[in-house]
Amino acid sequence: MVSISEGVTQVLIPLSALIGIAFALIQWLLVSKVKVSSGVIENENHNQRNRLIEEDDQEIGVDSDQIVFKCAEIQSAISIGATSFLYTQYKYLAIFTAIFAVVIFLFLGSVNNFSTQSEPCTYSHGNMCKPALANAVFTTIAFLLGALTSVLSGFLGMKIATYANARTTLEARKSVGSAFIIAFRSGAVMGFLLAANGLLVLYVSINLFRLYYGDDWEGLFESITGYGLGGSSMALFGRVGGGIYTKAADVGADLVGKVERNIPEDDPRNPAVIADNVGDNVGDIAGMGSDLFGSYAESTCAALFVASISSFGTNHDFSAMAYPLLISSMGIIICLLTTFVATDFFKVNDVADIEPSLKRQLLISTILMTIGIAIVSYTALPSEFTLFDFGSNKLVNGLDIFFCVSIGLWAGLVIGYITEYYTSSAYRPVRDVADSCKTGAATNVIFGLALGYKSVIIPIFAIAIAIYVSFSLAAMYGIAMAALGMLSTMSTGLAIDAYGPISDNAGGIAEMAGMSHSVRERTDALDAAGNTTAAIGKGFAIGSAALVSLALFGAFVTRSGIKTVDVLTPKVFIGLLVGSMLPYWFSAMTMKSVGSAALKMVEEVRRQFNTIPGLMEGTAKPDYAKCVKISTDASLKEMIPPGALVMVTPLVVGTFFGVESLSGVLAGSLVSGVQIAISASNTGGAWDNAKKYIEAGRSEHARSLGPKGSEAHKAAVIGDTVGDPLKDTSGPSLNILIKLMAVESLVFAPFFATHGGLLFKLFS
Amino acid sequence: MVSISEGVTQVLIPLSALIGIAFALIQWLLVSKVKVSSGVIENENHNQRNRLIEEDDQEIGVDSDQIVFKCAEIQSAISIGATSFLYTQYKYLAIFTAIFAVVIFLFLGSVNNFSTQSEPCTYSHGNMCKPALANAVFTTIAFLLGALTSVLSGFLGMKIATYANARTTLEARKSVGSAFIIAFRSGAVMGFLLAANGLLVLYVSINLFRLYYGDDWEGLFESITGYGLGGSSMALFGRVGGGIYTKAADVGADLVGKVERNIPEDDPRNPAVIADNVGDNVGDIAGMGSDLFGSYAESTCAALFVASISSFGTNHDFSAMAYPLLISSMGIIICLLTTFVATDFFKVNDVADIEPSLKRQLLISTILMTIGIAIVSYTALPSEFTLFDFGSNKLVNGLDIFFCVSIGLWAGLVIGYITEYYTSSAYRPVRDVADSCKTGAATNVIFGLALGYKSVIIPIFAIAIAIYVSFSLAAMYGIAMAALGMLSTMSTGLAIDAYGPISDNAGGIAEMAGMSHSVRERTDALDAAGNTTAAIGKGFAIGSAALVSLALFGAFVTRSGIKTVDVLTPKVFIGLLVGSMLPYWFSAMTMKSVGSAALKMVEEVRRQFNTIPGLMEGTAKPDYAKCVKISTDASLKEMIPPGALVMVTPLVVGTFFGVESLSGVLAGSLVSGVQIAISASNTGGAWDNAKKYIEAGRSEHARSLGPKGSEAHKAAVIGDTVGDPLKDTSGPSLNILIKLMAVESLVFAPFFATHGGLLFKLFS
Repeated sequence: MVSISEGVTQVLIPLSALIGIAFALIQWLLVSKVKVSSGVIENENHNQRNRLIEEDDQEIGVDSDQIVFKCAEIQSAISIGATSFLYTQYKYLAIFTAIFAVVIFLFLGSVNNFSTQSEPCTYSHGNMCKPALANAVFTTIAFLLGALTSVLSGFLGMKIATYANARTTLEARKSVGSAFIIAFRSGAVMGFLLAANGLLVLYVSINLFRLYYGDDWEGLFESITGYGLGGSSMALFGRVGGGIYTKAADVGADLVGKVERNIPEDDPRNPAVIADNVGDNVGDIAGMGSDLFGSYAESTCAALFVASISSFGTNHDFSAMAYPLLISSMGIIICLLTTFVATDFFKVNDVADIEPSLKRQLLISTILMTIGIAIVSYTALPSEFTLFDFGSNKLVNGLDIFFCVSIGLWAGLVIGYITEYYTSSAYRPVRDVADSCKTGAATNVIFGLALGYKSVIIPIFAIAIAIYVSFSLAAMYGIAMAALGMLSTMSTGLAIDAYGPISDNAGGIAEMAGMSHSVRERTDALDAAGNTTAAIGKGFAIGSAALVSLALFGAFVTRSGIKTVDVLTPKVFIGLLVGSMLPYWFSAMTMKSVGSAALKMVEEVRRQFNTIPGLMEGTAKPDYAKCVKISTDASLKEMIPPGALVMVTPLVVGTFFGVESLSGVLAGSLVSGVQIAISASNTGGAWDNAKKYIEAGRSEHARSLGPKGSEAHKAAVIGDTVGDPLKDTSGPSLNILIKLMAVESLVFAPFFATHGGLLFKLFS
Repeated sequence: MVSISEGVTQVLIPLSALIGIAFALIQWLLVSKVKVSSGVIENENHNQRNRLIEEDDQEIGVDSDQIVFKCAEIQSAISIGATSFLYTQYKYLAIFTAIFAVVIFLFLGSVNNFSTQSEPCTYSHGNMCKPALANAVFTTIAFLLGALTSVLSGFLGMKIATYANARTTLEARKSVGSAFIIAFRSGAVMGFLLAANGLLVLYVSINLFRLYYGDDWEGLFESITGYGLGGSSMALFGRVGGGIYTKAADVGADLVGKVERNIPEDDPRNPAVIADNVGDNVGDIAGMGSDLFGSYAESTCAALFVASISSFGTNHDFSAMAYPLLISSMGIIICLLTTFVATDFFKVNDVADIEPSLKRQLLISTILMTIGIAIVSYTALPSEFTLFDFGSNKLVNGLDIFFCVSIGLWAGLVIGYITEYYTSSAYRPVRDVADSCKTGAATNVIFGLALGYKSVIIPIFAIAIAIYVSFSLAAMYGIAMAALGMLSTMSTGLAIDAYGPISDNAGGIAEMAGMSHSVRERTDALDAAGNTTAAIGKGFAIGSAALVSLALFGAFVTRSGIKTVDVLTPKVFIGLLVGSMLPYWFSAMTMKSVGSAALKMVEEVRRQFNTIPGLMEGTAKPDYAKCVKISTDASLKEMIPPGALVMVTPLVVGTFFGVESLSGVLAGSLVSGVQIAISASNTGGAWDNAKKYIEAGRSEHARSLGPKGSEAHKAAVIGDTVGDPLKDTSGPSLNILIKLMAVESLVFAPFFATHGGLLFKLFS
């Protein structure tokens, strides 16, 4: 193995990040070629466009101006709604962030009574380190930076998605392929911007922090963990708030529109329709962006923290220390190459091509990345080094780390494929669920729940194997690197994930703009694949969250100075039991919030249908703003209790019950939360696609259950509605729950280690 | 503290058991006074009966002969169906038991290569103990005894319930109070028979085993653990098989009858109605009986095992050793006294009295039992002794053990009360769920799931506190005794639990026999309270299962010689993760089984309605036997995979991955399974009662949602149907899953300790 010099590392990392950003901008440029605002489609490919599916040829050109104008109008309504919601949400978050920054500073500053004296290092024996007060200051700064980057990630994602949705609709008039490319490119803009941005901010921060810390890497990388905490806490509120917003609107719109009034989804007469489409952007897009950014930031921080107290850190080997950042840099380049496969080599010409094309993205990026990992491992890591392993030192070699990163990467692929199997209507499980609609909503719900439970099995084995291998090879550093391995293809993962809600919005716009049936069919096909990729994205998010949390948990245990977490001690066991309960408590809150907000939405939508004359006939316009306000108010109010549960629990447990109980809580919430998160998101995805399967009627079997409005279809709609909060509110928030509690414990570990466990101290 | 002599102990235990059995027989005698077979009601209280609710006075006497005859006919059909199902099931179980007995013998015999030589004891240093082969033989015998007792418990329960159901119906013609007394007394027959029988068999076995083992108490009580394994393995198949049977029939009957054909529940025209009523007896009654017997047997075995290697055992202090049995003996006497409160002091005169009366039973038995525990602790325990605590000895005193037992007992009461709060329509949560039916089935399902999740919080804290206190005071012995404390009022718990399905059946018989609306209303009121008490019973079963499993887990760890179960080792952590997944896997299987069997049932019921002329008009009879056969076949076939999952997992993990991983699996399945079990059973109970709340229409609010057949009611029926497999198949089976895996691990611990962990041995 060759160790590249620090200078090369210092060039490679920002270079990759800048390449990623440049690539994202190019994709944006390509998307922007589709004009929405002017009355004429000025796509440069206008004359050579691919016309493979054009049953409605006559439509193109007919009333083109008017339709484009209408699309622009709807797009602008959605974009304004989403932007104004996010601004309001950010105001709340700014207050939270300010308060929590003070809490961090006070708790960590109090570790050594706000002393400004240097202290002996904890791990690097014999050396002097910066005072705890400095760590408090820099952790607070890192927290603020993480929060800012997270918010920026979510906001940028939303901007791109609301820019792309109408463009996808307009392209869908030409063919499935053109629409797919627009949606996919827009997803890529988001994926690359986020990954590159996250990497760049972290890289710059480390270098700036070094100006103060110098050779005190222990303190430097302890402070950097604040970055992960900032990222994840914003992600939590983004996911929960956005999730409640979108599902309150979606459930409310469906219950009155589809079930009572028998009008199609996204019908412009439905007062909640704009809120629903805004929701996709603030929940699925902005929430997901913040979430994956959080995972990325946390796993990097966990790896860096463990590395800093291992031989990398004590030898001040910067290239080896920067290994996690180099892996992410390589990931950006690999994903960039992979993107060309979808946009240039294997084009999507038909509905049936969509899912294989997206799956191919996953497979190719995984294969290429394995080679990339080998290259980075060979060039950046010393052939042998020691890692900190709960009090002892573990001798490992570079090849071991290659295996750790790779197994995480491949476990991600397995999770992605299994998720696809359980949520795509191309396979048996979803078809069985659709079939069970024949006997009504009850069997549909029973089969859907069973499907979700079953879908947990293989992902858990995949995660368990990844954990066993990486844990055995390289302790907690191995786990953190396995998590980063899973996230190394994040740009691709985010691209195919963001593609989903963009297509969903595109369908909504097609419906609202009154486009023909065939356009809607194409966007529906894109959207059905999007449900599956969204589920795959959630699978990645959850799988990586499990690994990240374990790595953070290990770092926390290390930092708080306990040697074992023995289940057979009462403090740990009750922590484990209560920790396993937290995801249920959290889900109860979020599900109930969606339910209550949806009830309010239903009442408002009903009121408008009953009191606005001409609404059903399409001669009067509904009051969209009222519904947007209901979703906004509900989500802002209701995101606080579940958010508080997650943020306060580690502080309370650590302060009053001590680090052993907190370890139990973290382990418990991790092993229990992963299961609920996977099953909830797959159950929801399967119900949604079972419904779409019946609606699309592309097979003999599907037609026997349909068409829209049949009893089986009504049953399927009920399942879909139940699945909404499961898959878009509770499920995806749970992985933030487990990560966030772990990173928060890590950040506060110095405090808990000195002042924690008050209650037991009192009684003994 | 005074230690009573062995002689006194040897008298007190069998005496209490015999008193319990005698009391059960007296109750039976009282129930039998209501005549079903002859044409005339010969109740001795006939003339002084309490007529507080008698709107339909004129009905009594009218066509009395014919109605009684019809009731007798239906009762006999249910009884024959249940008996024949159980016989068939027992044939399968006999094969399983025989095979598994051989497995136990071979695995345990191989520990020391089937040597017949005495060996040095493991814990009692310097002494010689019986050969491992002897332990293999006696464990096998204990396993067979446990299996037999469990089967007997279930069978007796079923016999009593099918004897009591029609009698309850007939009494319901008089008043709610009379019907309540019959149902309650019948429940008491089951409660006391089971508790006394379990105690007696265990007591006799220990004394017989002593004839061989003499002073080798280590081997004696290690072998006795087989009793728990036998009990729980039968309970598993009983619960799963019975659960699938009853819910396939129930869901199938409801989907066609109530939803499609719009005929009432239990209408005799519905071909699945007999199967449905048979199901209540084989699932809820026989299954529950075996289940609680299993918990009782296991917690006693766990306590005895830990005691045998503590100072009780090494000093051969029989009275102290028999402390767990004495607690159970006291429990029988206390429950006996408590029963009089319901049957003689505070009589139920009105529908509104039912729930308070049942709740009072719980409260009074808990208060009295606390005194009972104090007496037993004071008389049987030495004032100071040492307990085995994972390798070290822990000095405890008798008072500590009193606290352990009591806190378990009171935690049970808390769980019972919280369960009542979340599942009774007297409180807000169920009313909110009912209210959400206004907007359809989807919101009903969302609110119901959220309710179930929320209902987990307080019970988990109650269990956690019980664990913390008893664990801290007396290690694993404390936990086992807390479990026994919770189960000490089992006779009362079973009585009020069995009361539920009996009332349910009574309602079915009233409907089928064509009795008037008011009789059905009374049985419905009994049944609604029964849903709540069934949920309370499940709460007890789950709470005690959590404690029992932890105690067994501790005993397993002790027996397999490991000192810590450190989450921060890869073997343990992946065990924890996979263990947490098992309840999901198991639930996926059982839910799917119910769903598939219900689909078959639906097809058969539809076929009969479509092909039998005059069926809807009531002029032709349906083919009940076909539906009974579908339920029977489905449940026998479908109980095997989930059963195998539970039975095989500990063997595979222990043999191939070793005791550390198995420890992780046990801890994981415990902390995750408890949550799902509680939430599933409460969600189901709440949906059922929300539906009944709308149907009963006893308040302004309820009437605004009803009546039967309204949109809100239809939505409520869907929720109820989804809840059926959750509350009666998956949920209650999960507590057996966690107990059974733990007791199986304990029984096979000697084998795993010597031969386990093959896979890791191979690779290292």
